[in-house]
Amino acid sequence: MDKLYIIKIGGNIIDDEQKSASFLRDFSGITEKKILVHGGGKVATKIGEQLGIESKYIDGRRITDEATIDLVTMVYGGLINKKIVSQLQSAGCNAIGITGADANLIPATKRPVREIDYGYVGDVVSSMINADNWNIFLQNNITPVVAPLTHDNKGQMLNTNADTIAQEIAKALSNEYAVSLIYSFEKSGVLLNVEDDGSVINNLNIEKYNGLKSSGKIFAGMIPKLDNAFAALNSGVKKIIIGKAENLKELIAGTSGTTIQTSPNPSKGGA
Amino acid sequence: MDKLYIIKIGGNIIDDEQKSASFLRDFSGITEKKILVHGGGKVATKIGEQLGIESKYIDGRRITDEATIDLVTMVYGGLINKKIVSQLQSAGCNAIGITGADANLIPATKRPVREIDYGYVGDVVSSMINADNWNIFLQNNITPVVAPLTHDNKGQMLNTNADTIAQEIAKALSNEYAVSLIYSFEKSGVLLNVEDDGSVINNLNIEKYNGLKSSGKIFAGMIPKLDNAFAALNSGVKKIIIGKAENLKELIAGTSGTTIQTSPNPSKGGA
Repeated sequence: MDKLYIIKIGGNIIDDEQKSASFLRDFSGITEKKILVHGGGKVATKIGEQLGIESKYIDGRRITDEATIDLVTMVYGGLINKKIVSQLQSAGCNAIGITGADANLIPATKRPVREIDYGYVGDVVSSMINADNWNIFLQNNITPVVAPLTHDNKGQMLNTNADTIAQEIAKALSNEYAVSLIYSFEKSGVLLNVEDDGSVINNLNIEKYNGLKSSGKIFAGMIPKLDNAFAALNSGVKKIIIGKAENLKELIAGTSGTTIQTSPNPSKGGA
Repeated sequence: MDKLYIIKIGGNIIDDEQKSASFLRDFSGITEKKILVHGGGKVATKIGEQLGIESKYIDGRRITDEATIDLVTMVYGGLINKKIVSQLQSAGCNAIGITGADANLIPATKRPVREIDYGYVGDVVSSMINADNWNIFLQNNITPVVAPLTHDNKGQMLNTNADTIAQEIAKALSNEYAVSLIYSFEKSGVLLNVEDDGSVINNLNIEKYNGLKSSGKIFAGMIPKLDNAFAALNSGVKKIIIGKAENLKELIAGTSGTTIQTSPNPSKGGA
């Protein structure tokens, strides 16, 4: 089984030209098969403001109206995506920028309207993803760079969370590849103390996680991310690593960040 | 040798929602291998104005400064490109939206500064295009949808004329495919009288073209397009067809538009 790294890079890193360039150089250096999933960053909000497109929220959740789906299609799928692709190409990585519509790589369904109408938001489940479509790229050593957009197969683009996309691709491809799913962002990993970047929990398995969660030692904001991570493990993903984008090489080597797997590496200490 | 249709669709058609939808349905119906190259349309100018990005011209030639290359990257490579892709997917055509940076499909060089600095404009020659990269898509029945953007392999996106892109791809792939290059726009073909859409010249070969040109019967604005068309024929492209986007099926069947080839079809009348 070939190794496959699926790496999510947060919007905060994308917004920082230097951090982004350094991350992309490290990413290019990965010799195994790889997929990059990028978030949106603040640039969409900034361009939206200039275009007079108001950010709408209901109960703290962002609503994607018609003007907003056009905005994110152009900013995420065009501006951010192609800047990353051209930089990766210059570093010798044969990248291709895609959304879920391209080659039907990530079909989705428009989120049903219940209490809230989220607008043009796509929900995707890994079983909708056809691994053969991805293999055309991966088997030809082409590296997909994925913008956080999907489509409904009826001609409509949809806005979709980048974390979710990374996870659903990881699950869909775990039958054919030994998948490591890496969430890289501005923090050093899952922290025992959210104020202290040195309090990284090096290894997590489900028993340890449940213990920390029930004793209130996991930062509430991390819980949905971690619940998702364990769901991905249950769906066949080999390993999930959470850590700082600047440390991509070390995250892959297992010497930085939080590694989540079914059986934790016995050579590494606990929290 | 497999047939390959490379079809350029003008910005005026893209701007018209109904014409565009009808064209894309016809395009989806082509059962042979195919590539779609799209122009920009007025939406980039409109969004540019809203963002306060001034269109700059020197001697009537548009200059692509830093703000403009970002603008066209997001509008051409994001908004327009992904709308086309999602519509083609809904019509059952397995499209993938690309720029020249993606999978290094169209490498280019930044136009050298001589009398005029055009800014971030890319010049491409067919010999820079690697047919193997295109074959990954074409051999897997994936239909590339090409935005008029290239890259310099040093991390910079470049603005490139869509007509030129269509022609250079056609030349680069004519060793492996029997390529028909179709320029579809708002007119019915090459006209003897630019005011009369009924005055279409059905067939052109080089002798006939030279005759019409020297007697001043070809509209001056068409001459660079036609000179390029004959250059493409000399580089191995089988056929060039120029005509109305609404008549795509008829253009392919040879019953509409102007067909340019080395030996004109004897069953069809002259101008």
